[in-house]
Amino acid sequence: IGECWVFGVKKPFTEVIKANIGDAHAMGQKPITFLRQVLALCAYPDLLDDNKFPDDSKQRARRILEACGGHSIGAYSSSQGIECIRQDVARYIEKRDDGISSDPDNIYLATGASDAIVTMLKLLVCGKGRDRTGVMISIPQYPLYSAALADLAAVQINYYLDEDKCWSLDIAELKRAVTAARQHCNPRVICIINPGNPTGQVQSRQCIEDVIRFAKEEHLFLMADEVYQDNVYAEGCKFHSFKRVLFEMGPEYSTTVEMASFHSTSKCYMGECGFRGGYMEVINMDPEVKAQLTKLVSVRLCPPVPGQALLDLVVNPPQPDEPSYDKFMKERTAVLAALAEKAGLTEQIFNTVPGITCNPVQGAMYTFPRITLPQKAIDKAKAEGQVPDMFYCMKLLEEEGICLVPGSGFGQREGTFHFRMTILPPTEKLKFVLQKISDFHIRFTQEFS
Amino acid sequence: IGECWVFGVKKPFTEVIKANIGDAHAMGQKPITFLRQVLALCAYPDLLDDNKFPDDSKQRARRILEACGGHSIGAYSSSQGIECIRQDVARYIEKRDDGISSDPDNIYLATGASDAIVTMLKLLVCGKGRDRTGVMISIPQYPLYSAALADLAAVQINYYLDEDKCWSLDIAELKRAVTAARQHCNPRVICIINPGNPTGQVQSRQCIEDVIRFAKEEHLFLMADEVYQDNVYAEGCKFHSFKRVLFEMGPEYSTTVEMASFHSTSKCYMGECGFRGGYMEVINMDPEVKAQLTKLVSVRLCPPVPGQALLDLVVNPPQPDEPSYDKFMKERTAVLAALAEKAGLTEQIFNTVPGITCNPVQGAMYTFPRITLPQKAIDKAKAEGQVPDMFYCMKLLEEEGICLVPGSGFGQREGTFHFRMTILPPTEKLKFVLQKISDFHIRFTQEFS
Ligand SMILES: Cc1ncc(COP(=O)(O)O)c(C=O)c1O
Ligand SMILES: Cc1ncc(COP(=O)(O)O)c(C=O)c1O
Repeated sequence: IGECWVFGVKKPFTEVIKANIGDAHAMGQKPITFLRQVLALCAYPDLLDDNKFPDDSKQRARRILEACGGHSIGAYSSSQGIECIRQDVARYIEKRDDGISSDPDNIYLATGASDAIVTMLKLLVCGKGRDRTGVMISIPQYPLYSAALADLAAVQINYYLDEDKCWSLDIAELKRAVTAARQHCNPRVICIINPGNPTGQVQSRQCIEDVIRFAKEEHLFLMADEVYQDNVYAEGCKFHSFKRVLFEMGPEYSTTVEMASFHSTSKCYMGECGFRGGYMEVINMDPEVKAQLTKLVSVRLCPPVPGQALLDLVVNPPQPDEPSYDKFMKERTAVLAALAEKAGLTEQIFNTVPGITCNPVQGAMYTFPRITLPQKAIDKAKAEGQVPDMFYCMKLLEEEGICLVPGSGFGQREGTFHFRMTILPPTEKLKFVLQKISDFHIRFTQEFS
Repeated sequence: IGECWVFGVKKPFTEVIKANIGDAHAMGQKPITFLRQVLALCAYPDLLDDNKFPDDSKQRARRILEACGGHSIGAYSSSQGIECIRQDVARYIEKRDDGISSDPDNIYLATGASDAIVTMLKLLVCGKGRDRTGVMISIPQYPLYSAALADLAAVQINYYLDEDKCWSLDIAELKRAVTAARQHCNPRVICIINPGNPTGQVQSRQCIEDVIRFAKEEHLFLMADEVYQDNVYAEGCKFHSFKRVLFEMGPEYSTTVEMASFHSTSKCYMGECGFRGGYMEVINMDPEVKAQLTKLVSVRLCPPVPGQALLDLVVNPPQPDEPSYDKFMKERTAVLAALAEKAGLTEQIFNTVPGITCNPVQGAMYTFPRITLPQKAIDKAKAEGQVPDMFYCMKLLEEEGICLVPGSGFGQREGTFHFRMTILPPTEKLKFVLQKISDFHIRFTQEFS
């Protein structure tokens, strides 16, 4: 206690701060009371007689239990997920997208968004040699994508986000990437993460339209990873769902572009990663392919039911006339307001440091600042057989007990270096971390100059 | 209410009885109090102050929460599963196997046994053409295996269980199957389910030894699906774990035969399917392959934490000196005693019906009786483009509202017909179902004679 050992050496810091994973609860965020009350009631229905729980939480729990086999969350559900929860998801999407209709039959619940994303890639990838499926992913990317593509022996087609324009997506770059790829594979899918991980950008409506037009022209299946849809902080930024923009572009697009959108219980204000709740909505999917999908998801029986229950609460939160509403809103707002504050702080503090340049954290939970490394440090890293930004992050961990992920883990333009840091630590701790990293960066630069 | 419609037609029965899936809670089995109390405490730790909960349930919940990031089951765990739970699993295995040691590093927690089985197959399958991996599975089989193998483009090598000898496994049949398969693929894996699904047999110690010897001789990786390890009912039958037998055969075997064993929270006395808890233990796995496995499981982040917590309680149940012990044992014993009674009833009643022959349900949760179908029924089914036992089951569903799975869904010897029924309905309902099926069988036989 109060001591810290890294690689067998006692350290001048008292704890390792893990700012490397987007795991809100692990960083001290408290669960939202309403969500956990309902989950406890579902797990142990004897509590339904307890007057400690508000009526709306009991009513939600009863509704979920009634939809479960034998009224127990210990029963398997259907593979696609519990029907009434899929209906709630569809209603949530309709409300979010101002009335654009959503069909519960197009909703597939999953073991987190990860499971849905991997399943969808698996469904879409096929072919051999020059016919191998190509999948376009942004660089920097969220490593789930590259890992899944490698696993499926699909061709990863990189398109680079424009760091100089706040990590925005440039259609000319998409065209370059797909044209080059057509020489050696069959590009069939484009993946977009919005708001972005690791880069924290929020896409403009215009950009989304352009991507949809591009997907249509190039006959690409569009995978929209929208797990950070509630995590938008920057003034002037707003979350636009790909589905909504697609439908607002008219039938020429809304009836032709094939798409899947992904959401999760792990992010936003709830941060409930451990429950592994998530869903995807598929749009304009060929009925035969959809039948394949339904078969594919049936192999593993069903997603975990507690995660499904949690997802139900997320898409169907307390309403203004319900007893849990005020507390729920207070907790939700506090989390999102703190994240917004921390997003601002992060950009601000890093940009005061010579050699660190940081785009605004418009959304999601990460910053991906660019770091200038002295040539001597680059040489030293290479001599030790290490990637330079890994060398940097390891030194930071050893000297300050702060754990980040080197940019090379996400991909970056040749010759540039970055790290990813989450903005999840509590405000005071985050300030401390930002200060420590800033000091370290200056020291590191001096040491190798 | 009180009316039942199948395929748009009003039926003479008032409910459809689903005796087709091994889903205990869906069939009315009540959750074990202790398990659910701890899960509720983990979900909503405010309840730790509630004096309604016994101390041992609180102490378990505290211990689990302390092992979670930020003390919340809403945090991701490590991909292999929470360390202290893997330790508890290892201790459980050691106790079960009378002291044979188990290393927590060899335990991988999973999203149900399904996930672990699919992951392991994926890890072991490779090659193309005549080098394609062959995987031996029993016929009748649990369809997860054939689906996963088809998905991985592996070669399924069937070995037939001996219906005349209580569905036992015959080494000569294994030899026949592997020898034939070596002509066109590379047999690398043998899968065994013990106690068996759908066939309900429990393997003798001798048989397990023979299988292990066979695996060693043929250089096969042994996958032992032991999810029904507590479900043994027949007099003279006992569960022998493959691991224990392997180690009792001495170092010639225990240090060479590669093996994985699977367990789950879905079966036994708890029947908690919805939580998707499970684990596998790997033994003698090549370190490089194990590193691959560790990488493979990391793609999807982690198994659901509530399922991990539940598994922890299953492997570390209340002890005699703890306040929950008596109630826990009473509930557990009641479930297992009822299953044993129903296993006996099922065999007994079916064997009174001419045209139904039923092996003893020694273990697991199913009976797989053989049915004699009149030639006219077989012809009629074929004329309608249906497999004969599917024709039979559909007719049973329409006329009696009882849902079974035709034997063809599991594989059976050419020209034989079966169905699978679970023994999970409550005793009185099971008696009713057995009587209805018996009457139906006699009527069906008369109708087509
Ligand atoms: C962009 C993105 N997609 C998907 C996921 C996976 O989320 P889940 O926990 O729902 O599997 C994450 C998790 O960090 C993510 O950042
Ligand atoms: C033999 C066998 N293995 C594995 C499973 C899968 O169990 P789980 O729910 O843990 O995925 C089942 C489920 O019925 C089974 O019968």
